[in-house]
Amino acid sequence: MRFLRVGEAGHERPVVMDGSVFYDLRPLTDDLHPSFWASGGVARCRRALSAGALSPTSIEGERIGAAVPKPPSIICVGMNYAAHAAESGASAPEHVVVFFKKPNTVVGPNDPIVLPPGSRHTDWEVELAVVLGRELRHAPDDATALDAVAGYALANDLSEREHQLKVSGGQWSKGKSAAGFAPIGPWIATPDEVGDIQSLTMRSWVNGEPRQDSTTADMVFPVAAILRDLSRYMVLEAGDVVLTGTPEGVALSRRYPYLAPGDRVTMEIDGLGRIEQSVVEEADAA
Amino acid sequence: MRFLRVGEAGHERPVVMDGSVFYDLRPLTDDLHPSFWASGGVARCRRALSAGALSPTSIEGERIGAAVPKPPSIICVGMNYAAHAAESGASAPEHVVVFFKKPNTVVGPNDPIVLPPGSRHTDWEVELAVVLGRELRHAPDDATALDAVAGYALANDLSEREHQLKVSGGQWSKGKSAAGFAPIGPWIATPDEVGDIQSLTMRSWVNGEPRQDSTTADMVFPVAAILRDLSRYMVLEAGDVVLTGTPEGVALSRRYPYLAPGDRVTMEIDGLGRIEQSVVEEADAA
Repeated sequence: MRFLRVGEAGHERPVVMDGSVFYDLRPLTDDLHPSFWASGGVARCRRALSAGALSPTSIEGERIGAAVPKPPSIICVGMNYAAHAAESGASAPEHVVVFFKKPNTVVGPNDPIVLPPGSRHTDWEVELAVVLGRELRHAPDDATALDAVAGYALANDLSEREHQLKVSGGQWSKGKSAAGFAPIGPWIATPDEVGDIQSLTMRSWVNGEPRQDSTTADMVFPVAAILRDLSRYMVLEAGDVVLTGTPEGVALSRRYPYLAPGDRVTMEIDGLGRIEQSVVEEADAA
Repeated sequence: MRFLRVGEAGHERPVVMDGSVFYDLRPLTDDLHPSFWASGGVARCRRALSAGALSPTSIEGERIGAAVPKPPSIICVGMNYAAHAAESGASAPEHVVVFFKKPNTVVGPNDPIVLPPGSRHTDWEVELAVVLGRELRHAPDDATALDAVAGYALANDLSEREHQLKVSGGQWSKGKSAAGFAPIGPWIATPDEVGDIQSLTMRSWVNGEPRQDSTTADMVFPVAAILRDLSRYMVLEAGDVVLTGTPEGVALSRRYPYLAPGDRVTMEIDGLGRIEQSVVEEADAA
């Protein structure tokens, strides 16, 4: 199944997509709260669909909201594709590299990318996002780690490189947390819907020109290893979003220009849909 | 005024301290939610106290909870005291250095410090915590920045140095986010209660022996400068906690041993009370 949030920002309603039909999820929950996943919401939804207890709904012409409401944390894994580490001037990491994005950066997958005032180094990063469905600490094995996953989504880990690298003292979060810097969606797909999470093609384009073109098979640390590692160092919670790193093909490589007003950014991951965003300056965003 | 949260973990009730008398705050709010500060809760509290509308209460023998419920974000400033930067092997930063702690690390000021399994490098850090009372973005001057402060508190920015520095790829959050790693309290003091925020003595002890002994006058970036800088790079929210860095005198300096089971950690900041914690291993913590 695929879970979406549809409607104006701050007033989204939850919707489930079964095959090609959308169903209003509000008889079960008013939003995709962490507690929805943690309390067996997916199983309840499945039963409700089987029983015909949910009504079909149209989302035609409506805004798609962030696939998650504001999460408890957005935990990011850095340098998790060897070729991207190389283009960033680093070698592939020996250990999982962890930083955070501020949770209030989450926006819809097609909302505009608002350049921070004066920004000349805003960069795109297509990433596989993992949404936690329950608490996880000290996961003893891959199966336990993956069993805590509610689902997967597509995300753009937007980054202001000057803020991240030049005025940061080396700690990256400063360039990762501007308003709107975590577009995520259009949907959360349950693990059974996605299949093998380590063989998904992921691509990005700017103004229709190819930028990133890779696969989750190229991750240095696959999803299960990331979750096991994180769960040693912190308590993961239902609703937490883990961004699993980006492959090569970003502007930081110097092969492409940074984002400018008027640019269009497109991203796709197999089975997780498509992000389409236009780039604007802050004055144009209101 | 001083605001506290008192009671068993997860079931704290809000209390306000006026002079030496405690008053039950529940007629005004069921907890110190971000919305309490953002909606003028302090002014309402002041009026209620003047009108005799709050009842005195005893907190004798009760647990003091974290001074804040789980915050939207815990934003940490690194290397903000020159002598601590030096003892860590770094020079004083040119720019505000920012990283995050996971918000579910918040615990009460006298709760035990639970060593992460196998940890041999858990370190203390006495810090001034700033609690935001409203949204702040692109603060144009110091007065605007400070006007967004709900109050100040004492915090221990616990750090596992091996996790922070050796298995992190250089990003510090991995060693800052273990369960219970953000003791904060005993209270939030309103700015008028604290006076000059840049002249507070701050001290820590382990087993009664002095460790840190400094003052907020030694900050590289004072509170107003920190908030102005952060508000350029992210949207600060009501309820956000900003930890403003620690002075010299931690175990990372190699002058003192790291924390071990049975140790007692004590901290004080002028006007912000006292933290008293005992160190335990995880098996003893349940």
